[in-house]
Amino acid sequence: MTQPSFMTLALREAERAAARDEVPVGAVIVGPDGKIWARDGNRTRELADPTAHAELLVIRAAAARLGSERLIGFDLYVTLEPCAMCAAALSFARLRRLYFAASDRKMGGVEHGPRFFSQPTCHHAPEVYGGLGETAAEALLKQFFRNRR
Amino acid sequence: MTQPSFMTLALREAERAAARDEVPVGAVIVGPDGKIWARDGNRTRELADPTAHAELLVIRAAAARLGSERLIGFDLYVTLEPCAMCAAALSFARLRRLYFAASDRKMGGVEHGPRFFSQPTCHHAPEVYGGLGETAAEALLKQFFRNRR
Repeated sequence: MTQPSFMTLALREAERAAARDEVPVGAVIVGPDGKIWARDGNRTRELADPTAHAELLVIRAAAARLGSERLIGFDLYVTLEPCAMCAAALSFARLRRLYFAASDRKMGGVEHGPRFFSQPTCHHAPEVYGGLGETAAEALLKQFFRNRR
Repeated sequence: MTQPSFMTLALREAERAAARDEVPVGAVIVGPDGKIWARDGNRTRELADPTAHAELLVIRAAAARLGSERLIGFDLYVTLEPCAMCAAALSFARLRRLYFAASDRKMGGVEHGPRFFSQPTCHHAPEVYGGLGETAAEALLKQFFRNRR
C-alpha cells in the first residue's frame, strides 16, 4: 500500500472520532512488514483518559501486539501534528518515520512549541514528513470546532 | 497526610519498580479530598508499553476512577522530574500541583529540554515544586543504573 493510502485510512479514523464527538484525529501504525498493526482515533472523552490521543492508542496497541516497548522500523501516519506528549512517546517507542497531515499551531510539539525532536533531551527522532493530505484533515478539524461553537 | 509523606509513598513505588527491574520512578496522585487516588511505578517493560511511566499510569487510573479526563484540583507526587510526555499529560489533565524529587537532566521536560509548561503551546500549567526527597530518589536511580552496567 502506498503512503497516501495509509493517510487516507488515518483520515477515516479521524472521521470516526468526529462521529463519536471526539476531536477528529486519526492514526495508523505500520510495521516493518508493511502491514497495519493498529489504527484508531482520539478517545479521550469515551475512555475518560487525557492521554487517549490517536497516536498513543496505536503505539500502545502495536507495542502490546509486538510484546516490546520498542517499535523498531515502524511508521506512524496521523492526521494532525503530534503534541509534545505524543512526540515524546514516538521517540521512546523508537519509531522510524512520522507522517502527519495538518500542522497544529496551538498544540503541536513537532514544528511548534517544544519542537521535541530537536531538544537535547530527545534521544531518538523519527524521520518527519508533514503536509500529506493536509487539506482534508484540516477541513475535518475546522468543521468539528465550528459545530461545537 | 503531609507532603513529605506522599513523596515517601512515591519513593516506595519507585523501590517496587526497581524490584521489577523497571527504571525506579514512582508516583502518587492525590485528589482534592486529600486522599490517594492512585499510586504506581514505571511498568514499561512489564506492560511492553513505552508510555507506561509512573505519572501516566496514575493519571490514567485516577481519571478512569473519576470518570473524567480532567483531574481538577488533583496533585501529583513523583520521584523524578517528568519527561515531556508526562508533563504534557499533566497539563491536559489540568492537574493543580506537581511535586517532584530528583531533577532529570537527560530526559526531563519541566526544568530541562522542552520546559513544556513555559511553551506557548501549553494551555494549563500546574504549580511546580521540585527537590522534595531528592536525595533518596536520586540514590535509588543511581544504584539501579550502576547495577545494570
